[in-house]
Amino acid sequence: MSWLARQETHDYEENDNLGVDWVLQYEFGDLDQATAISEFRALIHDLTEAGLRVQVRPGHGSALLVCIRVPRDHLGKMVHQSRIKDWLFGITNTLPAGDEKTTATAATPSEEIRSVYHAVTWQKELGGAGITRKFGNWKNITASFPLHDRDACSELLSKWNRKTNLTVQDLDTIRALFGEKVAFYFAFIHCYSLFLVVPAALGILAWWFLGPYSIIYGSALCVWCVVFVEFWKVRESDLSLRWNVKGVGRLKLNRTQYVWEKEVKDPISGQVTRTFPAWKQFLRQMLLIPFASIASVALGGLIVFTFASEVFISEVYNGPLKEYLEFVPTILFSLSLPAITSFLTGIATHLTDYENHRTQDLYDLAQTQKTFVMNFITAFLPTLLTAYVYVPFGASIVPRLDILRRTGLDVNMANHKEFQVDTSRFQAEVIYLSMTAQVFSFTEEVVLPYVKHVLWQKWRNYRDHKAGLARQRSFSKSTDLLLIDPPGEAAFLRRVRGEADADEYKVEEDILEMCVQFGYLAVFGVAWPLVPLGFLLNNWLEVRGDFFKLTLECQRPPPIRADSIGPCVLGLDFLAWMGTLSTAAIVHLYRGPMAEVRLSSLLLTIFIAEQVYLGIRFTASTALQKVFSDTLRREEAGRYAVRKAFLESSQSQHGSPGSSSRVRQRVRFHERVNVYSSDSAPSPDGSPSPTGEQPQHDVLRGSDRESEFWTGREGDPADAGVKLIRALHAGQPRDDPKMTKLA
Amino acid sequence: MSWLARQETHDYEENDNLGVDWVLQYEFGDLDQATAISEFRALIHDLTEAGLRVQVRPGHGSALLVCIRVPRDHLGKMVHQSRIKDWLFGITNTLPAGDEKTTATAATPSEEIRSVYHAVTWQKELGGAGITRKFGNWKNITASFPLHDRDACSELLSKWNRKTNLTVQDLDTIRALFGEKVAFYFAFIHCYSLFLVVPAALGILAWWFLGPYSIIYGSALCVWCVVFVEFWKVRESDLSLRWNVKGVGRLKLNRTQYVWEKEVKDPISGQVTRTFPAWKQFLRQMLLIPFASIASVALGGLIVFTFASEVFISEVYNGPLKEYLEFVPTILFSLSLPAITSFLTGIATHLTDYENHRTQDLYDLAQTQKTFVMNFITAFLPTLLTAYVYVPFGASIVPRLDILRRTGLDVNMANHKEFQVDTSRFQAEVIYLSMTAQVFSFTEEVVLPYVKHVLWQKWRNYRDHKAGLARQRSFSKSTDLLLIDPPGEAAFLRRVRGEADADEYKVEEDILEMCVQFGYLAVFGVAWPLVPLGFLLNNWLEVRGDFFKLTLECQRPPPIRADSIGPCVLGLDFLAWMGTLSTAAIVHLYRGPMAEVRLSSLLLTIFIAEQVYLGIRFTASTALQKVFSDTLRREEAGRYAVRKAFLESSQSQHGSPGSSSRVRQRVRFHERVNVYSSDSAPSPDGSPSPTGEQPQHDVLRGSDRESEFWTGREGDPADAGVKLIRALHAGQPRDDPKMTKLA
Repeated sequence: MSWLARQETHDYEENDNLGVDWVLQYEFGDLDQATAISEFRALIHDLTEAGLRVQVRPGHGSALLVCIRVPRDHLGKMVHQSRIKDWLFGITNTLPAGDEKTTATAATPSEEIRSVYHAVTWQKELGGAGITRKFGNWKNITASFPLHDRDACSELLSKWNRKTNLTVQDLDTIRALFGEKVAFYFAFIHCYSLFLVVPAALGILAWWFLGPYSIIYGSALCVWCVVFVEFWKVRESDLSLRWNVKGVGRLKLNRTQYVWEKEVKDPISGQVTRTFPAWKQFLRQMLLIPFASIASVALGGLIVFTFASEVFISEVYNGPLKEYLEFVPTILFSLSLPAITSFLTGIATHLTDYENHRTQDLYDLAQTQKTFVMNFITAFLPTLLTAYVYVPFGASIVPRLDILRRTGLDVNMANHKEFQVDTSRFQAEVIYLSMTAQVFSFTEEVVLPYVKHVLWQKWRNYRDHKAGLARQRSFSKSTDLLLIDPPGEAAFLRRVRGEADADEYKVEEDILEMCVQFGYLAVFGVAWPLVPLGFLLNNWLEVRGDFFKLTLECQRPPPIRADSIGPCVLGLDFLAWMGTLSTAAIVHLYRGPMAEVRLSSLLLTIFIAEQVYLGIRFTASTALQKVFSDTLRREEAGRYAVRKAFLESSQSQHGSPGSSSRVRQRVRFHERVNVYSSDSAPSPDGSPSPTGEQPQHDVLRGSDRESEFWTGREGDPADAGVKLIRALHAGQPRDDPKMTKLA
Repeated sequence: MSWLARQETHDYEENDNLGVDWVLQYEFGDLDQATAISEFRALIHDLTEAGLRVQVRPGHGSALLVCIRVPRDHLGKMVHQSRIKDWLFGITNTLPAGDEKTTATAATPSEEIRSVYHAVTWQKELGGAGITRKFGNWKNITASFPLHDRDACSELLSKWNRKTNLTVQDLDTIRALFGEKVAFYFAFIHCYSLFLVVPAALGILAWWFLGPYSIIYGSALCVWCVVFVEFWKVRESDLSLRWNVKGVGRLKLNRTQYVWEKEVKDPISGQVTRTFPAWKQFLRQMLLIPFASIASVALGGLIVFTFASEVFISEVYNGPLKEYLEFVPTILFSLSLPAITSFLTGIATHLTDYENHRTQDLYDLAQTQKTFVMNFITAFLPTLLTAYVYVPFGASIVPRLDILRRTGLDVNMANHKEFQVDTSRFQAEVIYLSMTAQVFSFTEEVVLPYVKHVLWQKWRNYRDHKAGLARQRSFSKSTDLLLIDPPGEAAFLRRVRGEADADEYKVEEDILEMCVQFGYLAVFGVAWPLVPLGFLLNNWLEVRGDFFKLTLECQRPPPIRADSIGPCVLGLDFLAWMGTLSTAAIVHLYRGPMAEVRLSSLLLTIFIAEQVYLGIRFTASTALQKVFSDTLRREEAGRYAVRKAFLESSQSQHGSPGSSSRVRQRVRFHERVNVYSSDSAPSPDGSPSPTGEQPQHDVLRGSDRESEFWTGREGDPADAGVKLIRALHAGQPRDDPKMTKLA
């Protein structure tokens, strides 16, 4: 993909963000003009009231782009306050120096953007503008996102193309650009891919010398799975300390949808917390069990039915159109799956709403849990059916399908010869899963959306151009000026429109995809020793493809913090456990002639495998925690140092322990924070600015283009927007009754 | 036992500790006089150099009792320093106010005695006297202990006799008297006994309506076991926060035996730590596996052999002396068990030494782990053999024993009738374990040692009296004065001599005993539903008996801190897991006729039971952690409050955040700290004393008797001791060649 990366660096004008921190897209195509105008005025009012600077530009079709900029001193204060809060909640150990009016410079772009995100989305009581996308009053705000840092992204991507392996610095860079939640995904795929080298190498040896269903390779694979999961747990906690996000969940704000039963004032800390009884929530969460049952029955039934009809048609049926009919079950399945999945997702969302989680994090976690259950069924059940039902029992089940068919209508069935189960079908499916399916999913996930996105943008631009021509000379000159992009901004605005139309990046989906891949390896890997090699190659591409998708196809996600990859760790545990049992069963079943397998010996094998699994897991977790306890020790040492410093300062009556730390000059507006060289840990004590030196207003010292963007069009942005709404409403080439009435 | 408690309160003179903080017993019977004198002078020198006051009295036989008292201002400083250290290591959240010269009053007797313990045992570099009992230079120090607080103990014991159930206040009292490690044991037995009420009630119902081997009762029992273990984990962490000992392991000092590879200076905190690679230690710890194998083979072989010979004699053999021979195997087993156990314990100790643990805590933990393995084998293997080998396979195995015998010598075997396995033997063994064995072990553990101790004391006193008569008129008058107890001290010294001769209290053994009991219930409980009732009744007595043993039969243990019951939690986990599998297997085997049981269905039952176990454990641990997360939340709130207070104080430039806390008068020497009303958490900020008010020397303001004890005999305690050594050496009624030479 290096050509793409290079292609993207050509245009400085396009890549410059002109000091825009955040963009809202307001769509008013479905509203009448008066409502649209009043809503829009309220929006601008809320934003300016929260101390944000605003510029309005036309978007695609009947949409406005609201460019938001947080004045630097306001932003610096927010960053400082956020660090103080981190310290109060014990996320970091160093209290940033300074008082209430101190402004701090963000250590990373993501820290800066997180404060911008807070300024835009937090409730007014907390000092934000209270703009929640697609919720409540703001249901017509269809996009709310920060702009990508194109230069940094393409630099990173082209850097990755020159080497095979990511480093911790690369992960730090991702964290600096996109926040910890995204960085954890890349850390996971990186760690997982590195670990994959071991079974890939073993797999080549096993493929050469042992063949499939080897006991040695199977055991090695199980041990590897367990060790990897335990290692990742340690690694995760390590990273969360490195990135200063350990336990970050507890300082997150309540969701607006959170229903609390009583307010509790803590006797020790004086904090008022809004609580909801934990046991009630747990009971509600127990509804996961009926949900999982329903999902299993619905999806499982569909899969069993598809599987049975497919087997029937391919193995038994011999009538006309066989070659076409063979595809019918799969096509029907693919067509009905989205409907069923979306129905189940609907139930899942209702359940998660009902569970009443305090923070968005916990809510997402609960929702991901349910998605995991559904994904697990659709991803694993077909192959499980092949491995444990079709191949072992096919010889007795399939002829019955035949009989069922025959008793109904007696079509011309040619050969009633003894049915032979194709025992290699299971292996063939595993090979398909590890090679073809991975390529398909990559295409589906990265390539297709990109093509679609590019074509769609071209079509929108063409349509806008036509609409612009149609509108010509119908408005006042000042409106015209608003409608036409100034030459200096044109490329930039094209890009912003593109990003506003792009999809949101859902990191949970990518994490789930990797978990499913790990699951394939753990559960079915023993059937074909080259599976890990296939996955390893795929992941080399996947990590780049996902970064490409993140930077060029999706909106930049708000840099949310997290201290793990979430509930997927539990999923990995479950998959490693199931993998052990399944590997034991597959090896036992498929090694020799299947007819000779006795149920009691099979059960004994599985039972022993489970005990071995429990033993290995215990040993691995103890050993890894012991050996890699370095970070934890360092964290303790950090805490100790804080307390020690405080003790010394309080005993020598100095007061503020940070007062001796060096005072750094505030970073000027346009100076780009270098994401490569920034420290892995923000140094919260490094950047206080004495209160007196603060600029009274947000003076733009950046490039001329920036200052032109923010000051070139004097006048109320609300008025400009209203003019644009009127113009765009009129110029829209749609047969909307309201629009024609107003025009 | 109330009569005992009351009997003990009769004598004020005996119960008063006369301000003695610590007692060392120096035995010199095996040394020549010159060595004994020089060793003793070194001892007194080290103690006085460390700032401790010393008085010497004769002990039993050729032993001296060295009574130690830490001057109150020295003690107060140590208490304060220890609190500062707790705060530095993050054990407590509140920084005690004051500077380096502040003296603090201990909140509990155990806090005070812990500082005394440190003053006596810590190395000289750390400000202690460096006296380690039975180690290095001090191998003739045979006892090192604080004196019991008789009044408080008997008050507590008589209080317990008036009620059926302990309260948290009682646990707090135990903590105040004996420290957290002992308190955790009582908390565990208390929590476990309370939980036992549920299966006891269910058991009565099951006994009445369902009979043994009921599926319903078995399932309930398994669920109960899992829930109890998970609850205890939550409870333990709750208590460790309540008692301010969470994570206390990390501030413990290195063992003197610890071998470090390099000194690492922490870049953040500046602490110098002596490290030993964790992976190396882990590899060494892996030797547990061969050790467990050897122990299993040794003990298991012995048990199997005993079992087989017993069965052979009782079921097959029919020759002469049958009624006597039947007991021979058990007697031989009982006789050889101590030898084998002590051999294995020796190996275990060597292994633990080799593992090179940093602190005594970790060392004890590793040793307990190995003891657990041995205990597990001796406690469970016999009954497991009955349940899973003798009853199911006895019919085919026992006749073979017969044949083996017959081929050798053809003794007169009367009836060669078909051998019938006695299927009720398993149940009979379980009934024995839950009733008779418990009573036996209680007698063995509490009653016998008490009788032995009392008789032994009487014998020693009688012998001392005789030796005193033999010595009469052979020494100077001043030596005689030293040899004869002054009337005011006689009762007190009799008690001190008794305590010096008493055993050490090993809390780990009591914890292990409870774990084994829990294991019996989990593993075999389903065979007889009244097992939990038996255990419940036993535990009512056990908790009182153990407290009786602790206070009247053993030396007062140094109040060591701990934040859990140690490795036994892992043992409980293991027993709950094994219990589930075993209950499933027993119910499956014993419910119907055993001949009809098929291996595959048995394996399936066990396999399903294991999955259910994993499921329940996961659910229980999630639910309990969610519901009982209150303490953790409170701890977080506590941390938050500390940081908040610090932030405010540092912003208002006050400096020391604790400066506003009230200054309390130091508690006078004799004022007894009331262990009942003392706060559960020591309030470290409540008791600083301004530096200026400190007394220049430790003025005794207590009773006359106390001041007489400490000042009545002026002169160097070392000289007094030397005189006593000479006198006692001479007066000892033994035919020691050295003694006769010197006399």
